[in-house]
Amino acid sequence: MKILVLNSGSSSIKYQLFDMRDESVLAAGSVEQIGEPGSHLSHSFHTGQGEMNKTVRTLPIPDHRQGFDLIASVLRETGALADTGELRGIGHRVVHGGEKFKEPARVTPDVLAAIRSLIPLAPLHNPANLLGMEVAMESAPAVPQVAVFDTAFHQSIPAHAYRYAIPKTLYEAHQIRRYGFHGTSHRYVAKKAAEFLQKPLTSLNLISLHLGNGASAAAIQQGRCIDTSMGLTPLEGLIMGTRCGDLDPAIIFYLARETGLASGEIETILNKESGLKGICGANDMRTVGELAAGGDPEAQLAISMYCYRIKKYIGAYHAVLGGLDGLIFTGGIGEHAGFIRAGCCENLAHLGLEMDGGKNRESAEGGFSIDSPASRVKILVIPTNEELEIAEQTVACLRG
Amino acid sequence: MKILVLNSGSSSIKYQLFDMRDESVLAAGSVEQIGEPGSHLSHSFHTGQGEMNKTVRTLPIPDHRQGFDLIASVLRETGALADTGELRGIGHRVVHGGEKFKEPARVTPDVLAAIRSLIPLAPLHNPANLLGMEVAMESAPAVPQVAVFDTAFHQSIPAHAYRYAIPKTLYEAHQIRRYGFHGTSHRYVAKKAAEFLQKPLTSLNLISLHLGNGASAAAIQQGRCIDTSMGLTPLEGLIMGTRCGDLDPAIIFYLARETGLASGEIETILNKESGLKGICGANDMRTVGELAAGGDPEAQLAISMYCYRIKKYIGAYHAVLGGLDGLIFTGGIGEHAGFIRAGCCENLAHLGLEMDGGKNRESAEGGFSIDSPASRVKILVIPTNEELEIAEQTVACLRG
Repeated sequence: MKILVLNSGSSSIKYQLFDMRDESVLAAGSVEQIGEPGSHLSHSFHTGQGEMNKTVRTLPIPDHRQGFDLIASVLRETGALADTGELRGIGHRVVHGGEKFKEPARVTPDVLAAIRSLIPLAPLHNPANLLGMEVAMESAPAVPQVAVFDTAFHQSIPAHAYRYAIPKTLYEAHQIRRYGFHGTSHRYVAKKAAEFLQKPLTSLNLISLHLGNGASAAAIQQGRCIDTSMGLTPLEGLIMGTRCGDLDPAIIFYLARETGLASGEIETILNKESGLKGICGANDMRTVGELAAGGDPEAQLAISMYCYRIKKYIGAYHAVLGGLDGLIFTGGIGEHAGFIRAGCCENLAHLGLEMDGGKNRESAEGGFSIDSPASRVKILVIPTNEELEIAEQTVACLRG
Repeated sequence: MKILVLNSGSSSIKYQLFDMRDESVLAAGSVEQIGEPGSHLSHSFHTGQGEMNKTVRTLPIPDHRQGFDLIASVLRETGALADTGELRGIGHRVVHGGEKFKEPARVTPDVLAAIRSLIPLAPLHNPANLLGMEVAMESAPAVPQVAVFDTAFHQSIPAHAYRYAIPKTLYEAHQIRRYGFHGTSHRYVAKKAAEFLQKPLTSLNLISLHLGNGASAAAIQQGRCIDTSMGLTPLEGLIMGTRCGDLDPAIIFYLARETGLASGEIETILNKESGLKGICGANDMRTVGELAAGGDPEAQLAISMYCYRIKKYIGAYHAVLGGLDGLIFTGGIGEHAGFIRAGCCENLAHLGLEMDGGKNRESAEGGFSIDSPASRVKILVIPTNEELEIAEQTVACLRG
């Protein structure tokens, strides 16, 4: 049973083809710079000898429709897929499902209209996600399509955590509330953590830290998300590569008065010029780590601030969860930056969190634990796999 | 030794006269609506028989200078003060001391200039505070004057907690960082908590919750503040009467796009129409409590959100303090709203916090504890007294 997973951006389509009998990846890749000079396809596929081959083709890809058709033909040529008709389903990543989508949804005209109505909440992402669904439906009309939402896992958050303390008319008329993102990742690693711990997910209280270029924390109580650090948008919460995370909202007004910058310019600064980049000039944690190790005080401050912010979220979620069984690190930084994991867990023994420095320096394919024997809370490093989670949810949705 | 404490607002001057031998209040009051129709003086003073008398005089008070002179003459007429020359010092509340003032400062032309340079950070408060100092110095030039800053106690916060993850040039050029407010109150109740617990303040880790119409939390490690919930301005942090507290900063941009509201209008909404008022229509916690008790779901939500936000701060500060000895409730709500204290401490036994419901319904003049015998953390209700703290700091500053 083959499932294609698509993540359609404004000028790219990323894809992975799964054989769901064993959840193996048959092929994966992306078309990039659609409609731009230099448009190209990167494609990796199994040779049949257990190896992956990679091919890159530079060619004009004028629009998403031709991008999708190119993906279908390269899958056919490399033997991964005889025809799109062979697909059991196509799973689409959709960033914003608003309050409407608490679960994955079979794509129908009504579902497309509902996703379109949410464009104001995700003006960059939802239009590109919609485009991906539309071209896939045109090109492969017989294949069932499923939308899987980044926000859906967080729809279990209760009102006292998702409402902001602003006039309720702004919630009612403009849907201003906490939605959260990275839900597919938080859900996936929570499931994997339960498997790792050999306990039912519904018996565990977990904090999941998805630390990539974007970053968010989630408080998961017996399998249900009860709070998350991103809000109406992905700007709130943890410090990220270029996003500020939590901020006194009045800074925006102060900055406008003091600098004369327009609202749109300030929005760009907070999204693109802040975070690690704003503090120390580098937005990639590997670079920040190297700078800090070389004695750069700004990079050292950036790391201190990054870990301090996370510790405050660990403490806040530990408090509201009523107890903690496991802390999960995932995402590029969470999976690979041991010095960040160490910084986040430092001096938290009074929360029952004690890291084993030796284990923290190791790595393992499918996830590993880094807590010391004395730690009451398990500390886990779990590689995320949003594409596989989307494929699994697509299958589950199609099975009803 | 008599000390006069002044809190000068844009159209008012509040005052208290202390006899510092026993820290007793000899007289207290305010001039209000300065320069407006209906300007008046409210004055309370000791009769000598251990009672306080109150008098209200409505008369034209065209400016702060005449307001100050009126205070001096009513103090003289009611026998509290023979002459301003009898004052050992005048202590002034100043809202914003920026990074310049980590301690109270004897008022000099340089100090006035420094406070003036901080007006952009506190455009409503610092000009009014300056006016109070200027008229007091004109009218009582021989009396030493001391500025006591709301921000000073928070100047011990380390960079990883006071810096925001925005471009460092914005910190360097525009002093955008966490300052915090209510410092005089947090400092006072922390000292009183140590007295109550009969332990040195430097041996205690405390979380102080100042819950009034404005509200803030402070994490106090061995007597030094290491974090606080208000930021560059008093808008950040806890939910307040009409202020939103923590908010996804991108909501401001979203709201501008969706509603066409101007930046200044959004700022007013977040400061004056949000918080408890925004959620349920009432900004006074007594009213909110009555509405909630009567079954109003919006008032119940407001209380849930209010307490939930505080619980997250308790958890965050508990984590970064490395352990907790005492939780302090103060301010009008903290001192009097037992149902809020109960909501904030609910289900925090895993942090060592266990409230005694019976004790929480009691009250006592000088502060009381409300923890159960099993609670590892002491839970204290301590009435704040910012005026007395200003008087004490004035004396300490003048003694060098």
